[in-house]
Amino acid sequence: MDLQQTMRAAVLHKPLSISLEERPVPEPGPRDVLIRMMAVGICGSDLHYYEHGRIGKRVVEKPLIQGHECAGIVEAVGEQVTRFKPGDRVVVEPGVACGTCEWCKRGRYNLCPSVRFLSTPPVDGALCQYVKHPEDFVFKIPDTLSFDKATLVEPLSVGLYAAKRLGLAPGTTLWIMGMGPVGLTAVIAAKAFGVKNIIVSDMEPFRLEIARQIGATAAVNVVETDPVPFVLDATDGLGVDAVMDTTGNVKALDAAVQSMKRGGKLAAIGFPSAETVPLNLTLMMQKEIDMISIYRYTNTFQQGIDILAQPDVPAERLITDRFPLERVSEAFEKARTDKKRSIKVIVHPNP
Amino acid sequence: MDLQQTMRAAVLHKPLSISLEERPVPEPGPRDVLIRMMAVGICGSDLHYYEHGRIGKRVVEKPLIQGHECAGIVEAVGEQVTRFKPGDRVVVEPGVACGTCEWCKRGRYNLCPSVRFLSTPPVDGALCQYVKHPEDFVFKIPDTLSFDKATLVEPLSVGLYAAKRLGLAPGTTLWIMGMGPVGLTAVIAAKAFGVKNIIVSDMEPFRLEIARQIGATAAVNVVETDPVPFVLDATDGLGVDAVMDTTGNVKALDAAVQSMKRGGKLAAIGFPSAETVPLNLTLMMQKEIDMISIYRYTNTFQQGIDILAQPDVPAERLITDRFPLERVSEAFEKARTDKKRSIKVIVHPNP
Amino acid sequence: MDLQQTMRAAVLHKPLSISLEERPVPEPGPRDVLIRMMAVGICGSDLHYYEHGRIGKRVVEKPLIQGHECAGIVEAVGEQVTRFKPGDRVVVEPGVACGTCEWCKRGRYNLCPSVRFLSTPPVDGALCQYVKHPEDFVFKIPDTLSFDKATLVEPLSVGLYAAKRLGLAPGTTLWIMGMGPVGLTAVIAAKAFGVKNIIVSDMEPFRLEIARQIGATAAVNVVETDPVPFVLDATDGLGVDAVMDTTGNVKALDAAVQSMKRGGKLAAIGFPSAETVPLNLTLMMQKEIDMISIYRYTNTFQQGIDILAQPDVPAERLITDRFPLERVSEAFEKARTDKKRSIKVIVHPNP
Amino acid sequence: MDLQQTMRAAVLHKPLSISLEERPVPEPGPRDVLIRMMAVGICGSDLHYYEHGRIGKRVVEKPLIQGHECAGIVEAVGEQVTRFKPGDRVVVEPGVACGTCEWCKRGRYNLCPSVRFLSTPPVDGALCQYVKHPEDFVFKIPDTLSFDKATLVEPLSVGLYAAKRLGLAPGTTLWIMGMGPVGLTAVIAAKAFGVKNIIVSDMEPFRLEIARQIGATAAVNVVETDPVPFVLDATDGLGVDAVMDTTGNVKALDAAVQSMKRGGKLAAIGFPSAETVPLNLTLMMQKEIDMISIYRYTNTFQQGIDILAQPDVPAERLITDRFPLERVSEAFEKARTDKKRSIKVIVHPNP
Repeated sequence: MDLQQTMRAAVLHKPLSISLEERPVPEPGPRDVLIRMMAVGICGSDLHYYEHGRIGKRVVEKPLIQGHECAGIVEAVGEQVTRFKPGDRVVVEPGVACGTCEWCKRGRYNLCPSVRFLSTPPVDGALCQYVKHPEDFVFKIPDTLSFDKATLVEPLSVGLYAAKRLGLAPGTTLWIMGMGPVGLTAVIAAKAFGVKNIIVSDMEPFRLEIARQIGATAAVNVVETDPVPFVLDATDGLGVDAVMDTTGNVKALDAAVQSMKRGGKLAAIGFPSAETVPLNLTLMMQKEIDMISIYRYTNTFQQGIDILAQPDVPAERLITDRFPLERVSEAFEKARTDKKRSIKVIVHPNP
Repeated sequence: MDLQQTMRAAVLHKPLSISLEERPVPEPGPRDVLIRMMAVGICGSDLHYYEHGRIGKRVVEKPLIQGHECAGIVEAVGEQVTRFKPGDRVVVEPGVACGTCEWCKRGRYNLCPSVRFLSTPPVDGALCQYVKHPEDFVFKIPDTLSFDKATLVEPLSVGLYAAKRLGLAPGTTLWIMGMGPVGLTAVIAAKAFGVKNIIVSDMEPFRLEIARQIGATAAVNVVETDPVPFVLDATDGLGVDAVMDTTGNVKALDAAVQSMKRGGKLAAIGFPSAETVPLNLTLMMQKEIDMISIYRYTNTFQQGIDILAQPDVPAERLITDRFPLERVSEAFEKARTDKKRSIKVIVHPNP
Repeated sequence: MDLQQTMRAAVLHKPLSISLEERPVPEPGPRDVLIRMMAVGICGSDLHYYEHGRIGKRVVEKPLIQGHECAGIVEAVGEQVTRFKPGDRVVVEPGVACGTCEWCKRGRYNLCPSVRFLSTPPVDGALCQYVKHPEDFVFKIPDTLSFDKATLVEPLSVGLYAAKRLGLAPGTTLWIMGMGPVGLTAVIAAKAFGVKNIIVSDMEPFRLEIARQIGATAAVNVVETDPVPFVLDATDGLGVDAVMDTTGNVKALDAAVQSMKRGGKLAAIGFPSAETVPLNLTLMMQKEIDMISIYRYTNTFQQGIDILAQPDVPAERLITDRFPLERVSEAFEKARTDKKRSIKVIVHPNP
Repeated sequence: MDLQQTMRAAVLHKPLSISLEERPVPEPGPRDVLIRMMAVGICGSDLHYYEHGRIGKRVVEKPLIQGHECAGIVEAVGEQVTRFKPGDRVVVEPGVACGTCEWCKRGRYNLCPSVRFLSTPPVDGALCQYVKHPEDFVFKIPDTLSFDKATLVEPLSVGLYAAKRLGLAPGTTLWIMGMGPVGLTAVIAAKAFGVKNIIVSDMEPFRLEIARQIGATAAVNVVETDPVPFVLDATDGLGVDAVMDTTGNVKALDAAVQSMKRGGKLAAIGFPSAETVPLNLTLMMQKEIDMISIYRYTNTFQQGIDILAQPDVPAERLITDRFPLERVSEAFEKARTDKKRSIKVIVHPNP
């Protein structure tokens, strides 16, 4: 290999302070792939660390490279790597599970206690020029899928995993609450699972409008309209079969329970702001509504690539802003402050 | 048929006031079975109507015959009945679903909006000498199963249904919270599903002692001991795979979430006293704990009969009191006031 | 009601001999709907009875009205009917299950031993002007769904049921064997479940061409090409995740097993011509391939209506021939003899 | 470590010829455990290699140490091992999956194409004094579980895995065909899952008698009795819900299909002697019987340990013969030739 020795990396030192630094290019282990990063999306969790320096008990205690929604080009491969060669276009599944614990062996590797997840402290992320990653968490992407769009496989994975756990299928009526990137990609996930009747809600007209453009069949602005009668009305009074909540909001969760059919399923996707949330357990039990917790995802990346590579999936509508790595601070500020016009901000670490 | 024309029935007129009255013996329809009632258990819901005249929105608006945990002898059968003949010993599944709605067709007949459930107002129940019931909700019992014990098939059904929905199997570690009749029969259900490691909790030493006798492997009195460290200790620090909560208690639900393994399942069986309950949704999501609502049961009666008919299942230990129909008021008072010594009170409508 | 007293019906008396007769218009029972039949599709089973007078042990022993893929207009309703009124446009689910047996209660009503299935001897079918049917097996159709197209909900139901039992989802690779009406509607079902990679096979170029038009991504004519290498090639050597076999053909089933990935699922949909079929059980076990039997369907009609009512589902491409009831014999002969050009033949019992 | 440098090993050179040889004691890698073997069961596959030098395409091409049902004492641990220390009593899960492939990530690691399975050529097995094995496929056993009995966790795992895939539960009626070690341990598995009604069949009275002793409720000798009417009779004419076939025998599989209820499930566990087997697909489809392939097992070892450690599980009844390693040839001959009196033959590699 004739690689450069150092690279630029965006490093978070303290809240609201990211600096560009020179770091050694990582050396791939025998089963690793070294990837030249071409596009990295800024996630809500990146923003949260950026603003607050922590998410719950996870604290940024030493300088951290952020970013985990990422795609690029294979630059070099470890000696035991069999599935990749330099030049391959790839997307990265950021959580590397151990493969040997009880949860990994049961196929629930998202619960692996030893998981190393890019950009979750103290593990560095992808907002730099080169990242090494084990080959079994790297996936080839077709030429029809741009690097920018490929970064959406990660947030889309949450919706795909929820769709599977909820058993979405043609004929299901679904309400997705919250039209941030996870909620919007969940619209794409639900459509891919054959769901036609997708109701969405948010507080920003801009986001609801995009939701409609990518496939939502009804949209309610909860600032203006009580969503419960709206949802009942949109389902001929029957209520919805399933809800995906990406907000963690108390009122949203209560409205969900009010608006569901007997036997419905509620996917809890967005963390609440407080640890504890009042839930209408009585009504949930009377209707026998199950609450399905969604923590990240498993086995969704190939599926997500297949979906986003379809020409008729207008996912690029979600990418509102693009910045080179040099302007990474600007990118974070845009994502942080302009929630009325910005959905997904992409950073390009390499030209 | 040479049936008597009238029968005695225990009728609830107002809270705490049950009187014995003469009522016409019901006439079985073409697909009904007429059953001479031999044993009727008093359920917690019977007690609640007895004390308060209502459960939530269900109100006793006219005199009500209570009782739905019941077994007896077939006295007569309608002309289209094919599976029963007079003299058959039977137990009754009290909720008669329509068989034609969306939920019935999906096998979730417990959610049938048209269900008629014995002793749920305004449907009369079984605390009388004769009950008619559609044959498809009646089940033969073997001679080895007494009528008294057969009444336990109904509360046991809740635990069996929860066991199935939780996927209990050999090797599962389980915590059952609340050792009333539903919790105690859930111990029997869990054992029947092959679960060896059953932790139980309650506030009454008497109930915990019975739980141990019928198969619980560890018992904690939550008045004296913080159950979370107890449960962790009883599982080598791992936490439990599953919880059945029969209490609806806020502290219990919180302890459940604290004590569960990643990927665990929590069955919500007991209704809370308030409509809304604060839940640690954050921790549930981090551990990806699903909350499974349990509303009554489906397709459990034959299974329950098979279990209770086994000679090594000491279910009769749960039957603490027996009264003839004439002393039905005494029976309700015993059940209502003596929770330190009484578990299941049985009434015998016929000698 | 001011209904006409008699109606025309197409009656099969002996193989290859259908005559038009006057029959009394059926009188709806209290929970029945009387439907003026507007379109009836001829099914492969109808053709089989027409040619051979029997299917296995089911023998046409008395004159039989055939047809069970049917749609029409509500003409009258029984007194207890709540969901329909005269004038409603509807499609009929032809198998009426008892709603009370073990299988019905578990949601597997397709296995109900007491099912009455239109046009399965001795139950008369829909090739007549009026049919009565219980309301819970009748479904409204939107104005955007023509009667002709609505008859396809029945064969589509088989594919939808198989899709659910196979767990089809985005990313699944699927091979559907046999492009008769069931195989072709299964392409529609698979697409509706989000499957993009659909390989199809048949012996008729005409049918393969239609399959391509409605969404198959690769088509192989098994007369010309060995399908196993074709399928492996079409899946980058990996093999398919799932197979739907609508042929019952020995070679097809063998090719399916050869072409599947480890852990794949094989849906057996088409009955074999011989009772017993040699299967490569050894290879199935080594790859841990499950064989899922598909017998009719459950709970698919609303789903099928939702799918066929979508404007972008080109299902009408499957309807190749239309006849008035007067020419019913011609319709059967067309369907029987012109398999190179005819897919689905529709009869219109009323003008 | 002060380990001995060489050890004795039983090596198969050609059919019917095993010799004791000195081999180097294996050196554990960083995540390996070195185990002093205390008990190794002879499996049917060991016998097949011993007699024929091959199983299908798997050929003994170089000298092979056999044995994969094994338990022992930890002698040393690699530097990264966290869960074991010298002196721990353990049982070995013999198939080491890669943990990184598509199947491993879905929890179906039994299908891992890179699996290394002890004693499957060219991987050496456990009939020697020391074996090294990755710690995540090693499990501690309690003092109440003898090494001999612990070797049964492996064959029991097949039944446990089948029990889970079949959904066995209290109330299921089950027929297990073939009372070799896998069939007999499947009786234990079924009982552990709560199944009370277990019918067994074989051709050897001796094996049927043991089956009865460990929990079978009805036993039929297929040499003397047609099992189909026997099974129907034993289930009140209803047929069984589930069948486990450990024979691969054509007649057995046919009898299974004849004897099952609608909606039943057939687990194919025993490989057939011919690659292809005639199956009554017609009847399977009419009854909607699914055939579930069982290839080894996943995630069963802790469960199996929990079950066999129960004092009331009489599994030692299956161990009929014990030999020291020096007499390994005698052990194989006993197992090969004395099928009327021998079930499981155990070899003790260390004193």
